[in-house]
Amino acid sequence: MRVMGVDPGLTRCGLSMVEASSGRRVVALDVDVVRTPANQPLPQRLLAISEVVEHWMDTHRPDVIAIERVFAQQNVSTVMGTAQAGGVIALSAAKRGIEVYFHTPSEVKAAVTGNGRADKSQVTAMVTRILNLQTAPKPADAADALALAICHCWRAPMLARMAKAEAAAEKQRKAFAARMKAVAR
Amino acid sequence: MRVMGVDPGLTRCGLSMVEASSGRRVVALDVDVVRTPANQPLPQRLLAISEVVEHWMDTHRPDVIAIERVFAQQNVSTVMGTAQAGGVIALSAAKRGIEVYFHTPSEVKAAVTGNGRADKSQVTAMVTRILNLQTAPKPADAADALALAICHCWRAPMLARMAKAEAAAEKQRKAFAARMKAVAR
Repeated sequence: MRVMGVDPGLTRCGLSMVEASSGRRVVALDVDVVRTPANQPLPQRLLAISEVVEHWMDTHRPDVIAIERVFAQQNVSTVMGTAQAGGVIALSAAKRGIEVYFHTPSEVKAAVTGNGRADKSQVTAMVTRILNLQTAPKPADAADALALAICHCWRAPMLARMAKAEAAAEKQRKAFAARMKAVAR
Repeated sequence: MRVMGVDPGLTRCGLSMVEASSGRRVVALDVDVVRTPANQPLPQRLLAISEVVEHWMDTHRPDVIAIERVFAQQNVSTVMGTAQAGGVIALSAAKRGIEVYFHTPSEVKAAVTGNGRADKSQVTAMVTRILNLQTAPKPADAADALALAICHCWRAPMLARMAKAEAAAEKQRKAFAARMKAVAR
């Protein structure tokens, strides 16, 4: 499974591409940070990000896009731009029929370091170790994008199991409701 | 000048198209509200909105897109979706080289009713009167999209004057700085 990780942002947008192989092995294929100048109009910034992201999708052909889920509560000054960039990236994925998953920052930290409140240096250190990199990825946006992709690789089997269990429960609920109706008749 | 007004949102996205003619006369050409189901995944919702918006841009060929500016402070539960939808619409405009302007809700209310704190019914009533409509536009998202486009038509000359004045001031500042350097030499 090939996973593209995205740490969305207007000023710096982290992109990563990893390949999940047997067990928990994850191999890094590519990483980049797209920067757009703060004095550029928003539509042009979004266009610049979208062009790089679409180029990545078309050349690396990921199976899944994992995007960091942002909340309106965190960092009010940048949250709108982050949401706008994330929306544009989700749109590019939808146009190509690529599945999109969102993971919260604490899910990513927990998956990679075992601690949902790990700091940036701990995340970077674990990403470097997991991917067996010679040097630590920089800036933090690059490390975050890699952590996001790793998180998805490791959470995907669990998410699939949860979806399957939920579908089975839903089927049971429907069957039971039909049974109730039949009994009441 | 043909202006497309957008009240961005995932559940309901208001779209309008108006034509500004001589003086303050504004004629309504089209209005719609794009709805996407809340149980659909975000990428598909953004794709559905983007497809309608792009169709509008390509058939109506607006000169300008006026989008409501959202703040992270207002209505936390819907603000992220609003930002994501707004981002996707700004991207579609950038791809076509169409200028995008953002107006805040209070700028829109002030332009249309003369009161930046007007309520929804006052905005709807003024939009109906300004555009000389037989019936009031419904739902509120449709009226808001029309109000946004009207607001842009009326603010555009002022924004152009402000941009011109700012450019002139910047030129003066540079000339003066150069003069200071020459004097100091």
